[in-house]
Amino acid sequence: MKPADRSSHSSRAHNLEILFLGGAGEFGMNCTVYRYGEEILVVDAGLMFPEEEFLGVDFVIPDIQYLFERAKKVRGIILSHGHEDHIGAVPYLYEAVKAPLYGSDFTLGLVQAKFQEHRLDAHSDLHPVKPRDVVKIGPFEVEFIQVTHSIPGAMSLAIRTPVGLVIHTADFKIDQTPVDGRLFDFPRLGQFGDEGVLALLGDSTNSEREGFTPSERRVGEALEPILRRARGRVMLSTFGSHIHRVQQILDIAAANKKRVCLVGRSLLQNTKVAERLGRLTIPAGILVEPKAADRIAPDRMIFVVTGSQGEPMSALSRIALGEHKEVKVGPGDLVIFSARTIPGNEKSISRVVNHLLKRGAEVLLDEGRDSIHVSGHASQEELKIMLNLTRPRYFVPIHGEYRQLHRHARLARDSGIPPERILLPEDGDLLEFSREKAWRAGKIGTGRVFIDGTREEVEEVLIRDRRHLSEDGIVTAVVVINKGSGEMETEPEIVSRGFVLEEEDGGGILQHAADVVRETVAASTLEERGDVHVIHAKIQAELKRLFRKETGRRPMIIPMVIEI
Amino acid sequence: MKPADRSSHSSRAHNLEILFLGGAGEFGMNCTVYRYGEEILVVDAGLMFPEEEFLGVDFVIPDIQYLFERAKKVRGIILSHGHEDHIGAVPYLYEAVKAPLYGSDFTLGLVQAKFQEHRLDAHSDLHPVKPRDVVKIGPFEVEFIQVTHSIPGAMSLAIRTPVGLVIHTADFKIDQTPVDGRLFDFPRLGQFGDEGVLALLGDSTNSEREGFTPSERRVGEALEPILRRARGRVMLSTFGSHIHRVQQILDIAAANKKRVCLVGRSLLQNTKVAERLGRLTIPAGILVEPKAADRIAPDRMIFVVTGSQGEPMSALSRIALGEHKEVKVGPGDLVIFSARTIPGNEKSISRVVNHLLKRGAEVLLDEGRDSIHVSGHASQEELKIMLNLTRPRYFVPIHGEYRQLHRHARLARDSGIPPERILLPEDGDLLEFSREKAWRAGKIGTGRVFIDGTREEVEEVLIRDRRHLSEDGIVTAVVVINKGSGEMETEPEIVSRGFVLEEEDGGGILQHAADVVRETVAASTLEERGDVHVIHAKIQAELKRLFRKETGRRPMIIPMVIEI
Repeated sequence: MKPADRSSHSSRAHNLEILFLGGAGEFGMNCTVYRYGEEILVVDAGLMFPEEEFLGVDFVIPDIQYLFERAKKVRGIILSHGHEDHIGAVPYLYEAVKAPLYGSDFTLGLVQAKFQEHRLDAHSDLHPVKPRDVVKIGPFEVEFIQVTHSIPGAMSLAIRTPVGLVIHTADFKIDQTPVDGRLFDFPRLGQFGDEGVLALLGDSTNSEREGFTPSERRVGEALEPILRRARGRVMLSTFGSHIHRVQQILDIAAANKKRVCLVGRSLLQNTKVAERLGRLTIPAGILVEPKAADRIAPDRMIFVVTGSQGEPMSALSRIALGEHKEVKVGPGDLVIFSARTIPGNEKSISRVVNHLLKRGAEVLLDEGRDSIHVSGHASQEELKIMLNLTRPRYFVPIHGEYRQLHRHARLARDSGIPPERILLPEDGDLLEFSREKAWRAGKIGTGRVFIDGTREEVEEVLIRDRRHLSEDGIVTAVVVINKGSGEMETEPEIVSRGFVLEEEDGGGILQHAADVVRETVAASTLEERGDVHVIHAKIQAELKRLFRKETGRRPMIIPMVIEI
Repeated sequence: MKPADRSSHSSRAHNLEILFLGGAGEFGMNCTVYRYGEEILVVDAGLMFPEEEFLGVDFVIPDIQYLFERAKKVRGIILSHGHEDHIGAVPYLYEAVKAPLYGSDFTLGLVQAKFQEHRLDAHSDLHPVKPRDVVKIGPFEVEFIQVTHSIPGAMSLAIRTPVGLVIHTADFKIDQTPVDGRLFDFPRLGQFGDEGVLALLGDSTNSEREGFTPSERRVGEALEPILRRARGRVMLSTFGSHIHRVQQILDIAAANKKRVCLVGRSLLQNTKVAERLGRLTIPAGILVEPKAADRIAPDRMIFVVTGSQGEPMSALSRIALGEHKEVKVGPGDLVIFSARTIPGNEKSISRVVNHLLKRGAEVLLDEGRDSIHVSGHASQEELKIMLNLTRPRYFVPIHGEYRQLHRHARLARDSGIPPERILLPEDGDLLEFSREKAWRAGKIGTGRVFIDGTREEVEEVLIRDRRHLSEDGIVTAVVVINKGSGEMETEPEIVSRGFVLEEEDGGGILQHAADVVRETVAASTLEERGDVHVIHAKIQAELKRLFRKETGRRPMIIPMVIEI
């Protein structure tokens, strides 16, 4: 055992521990644990979308076993803002620890919607806070600091612990002209800097980007002439939680006597919450239902649509394929991708662009030009401002892969923090802080839990041992489609394992599955059949449904769509 | 039947047909067929790397059934340049049609190396040509036009047909200061324009890029101070066929008394061919073997390494993981990615960057800044120059997905070509040209053939019916690895189908396969086990070897590596 570990054990009661259950060394599923003595505070509980999308899981959350085992010691859960990579795992975490939740009204509004979906009642545990509010949570005193980001109600945290003050930025940028007029709280951060900050945990998402991230207002300025002059319908795709962007579009539409139609479940839900909380002002009579949009002159219609990453089952993808029930796109229409391309999604987006162009629409992509989209994360100059405002003794870069954390560490070094006081964490790392010092105190076993959408009950995740992952079995469906003709070249092959059906019902379900696959392909248009991603997603959805219904189980569904 | 179809049939003997077997509406596996009467000329026969990389095939080639059935009518195969997306399928095509091959010395040098690998003897059919050479091939007369590109010996084609002159650009850019001094042949293209061009088939790869593509010399200028000042070893990663870039690095090294080590099979092979043909000048005594490089002072060593796309089994990836036998990387070293990121490879590259940074190296990426890498393809202004030089009656954008072809079509329209004379092709499209007119004359069934590396014999591809694709069976291996500990959480699960072994040998092979998987994981380092891509590639390689050896068959190997 290393000296650090020994000191960790002997002095636990007098030191602060910070543990990363997710989001350190990877993008997404952020979850940080603060522990003093036996008492625990959790900051954020997010999800991530798995790279292994073919596995058929909807998303991944951190393994919260560590917190489940110490449920009684969890004094509170703080949510910095309402993006999925910060709140997506909250229903699972809440079910496990039943601790009070703190966050802005908007963040908790989104959480509440999740709770409703999961039929969880947590109302009495939701504690909305305002900027500069201070909340005592066990041995911690947490102050909420208003920051600017690509979602309303984002806050950094000043966590007073018995060994010193920790600033946990979570996601932020420094937008000097925020759309909602709520300013980045320079003064308060500066005061903390004067007071003395033991450690800064800082957002590294854009640490590789030079300069300053432009203000969200720049997007409005870039979109205004485009929307104003459009002679056909405009479809603008963005993230469903980007309320500031929606606000700007609504304002531009109102000023130009245009109507707006919101398409996509998350967008509808988030705008509803935002409006209820006064975070979004919807001009009277401006919204149109998709069904009614057809009766409005094309040059008067703006659609805001989800699916900017090319997700095959999203509203935009279905529109692009001519498969959306209510919204059609065609010649004269303009589709604007007002979102960044998340690395890994380039091909999916290109796929949607190709379909849109084939239908005759114009397509406008940002491609890093900082006009029709700007980032919500601080670039290098802003990160240095955060470092200089808070002047921490220790620096811990968070939110990013190793390369982003590494670059942020270098910015900190350039800003005068000695290398030995920079701790670059990875998932499972336990950092320990005394009043004077900080060190790596060990590593705990962490992991990931695969979640199959809202159909998965929250409790199941908790009682399920990690090893059960493949115990519901694996079903592989091999489909060979001719790219030119769209015909299936062979009968679908269904292979299963761990899914003990042969004995149970003579394998009839597998024949049934083959039928479902054949019918799914047959019911698809030629354009859909020419698109591996779409066929993959459709087969996965149908087989999931079939196995759930017929057997009550959820095997991993792995379609192999082979284009020849 | 449409009128166009009827005219196609009645007038076949007097019209030119252009058919796209691959590369139209997708990137890669370019293959264009020119047909007059019954006689056929093929331009390029390339491969592509499949998006479905998990299928375990090494690459994909066009289905050449159409040419196989008309083998006796194929008068010649012209190869515009030596990139894999233009020559990768040549051994298969040659085996099918045994027609004479034409191309520059360097292009044919690379083809010959392929033939040697496949143990094909085609020497008497290889006809090297020089710029402005004219070759009569059946009813066609083909003139070769020197253009600039990211590989030596690239040529556009002027194809004189009985109905008129077609310019087939293949890949090009307009580099006014090419590294080898061989200029883009403006005058000849202009003469063709004066003479009258029936159709231009133009490279659309960079049609979405504004302005001019910078000269390759810019890369040398950007690299010179970096290489000169480097205080540690420099590893520069680029494509193995980028001889001009290698030349610039060798020249910079010589001027600064540094030594160069070439790492990677394709790089070694291509530079050998280039040197033999006088296309690459290697300063005497500058090259070092990897084994000897350790004895040279770090600030005197430059490595040129393949693997710029983060391919998990490439030299760079193995170096990044500390698994390369001879080349190690560490603190003080600088790794330069002197290549573009092919869309879809962002995550693989990030993976390699993370590993390199963890080993303490510095990493320099181009990220579209046009300094340490420039494209080999013409941007919008160059494409307009090509359009204006040749002033074609008809325009056909080639080389790209629909979105690139569509954008190129718009550039042509902006350059004065009426929309009705722009034909945007997709794979399988048959275009027909008379002296005055052009039209879509139909569509033929096309497809793709999956190739399992050099281990697959050329003849097999030809006799194999498309439907046989999955007849060698499918083997899925499911492995669950704990991301933190690197331990396997369950025994590997091997699932097979179509691979009729149960009866043959009692399934012993599947247990054997499970053992191989277990041993492969056990023999990997913790860092490798934390990297899904690497474990995936290693398991695939080992299982391929096992099944090939034990059963003489080549099932599709589909590893499912699940990180929890």
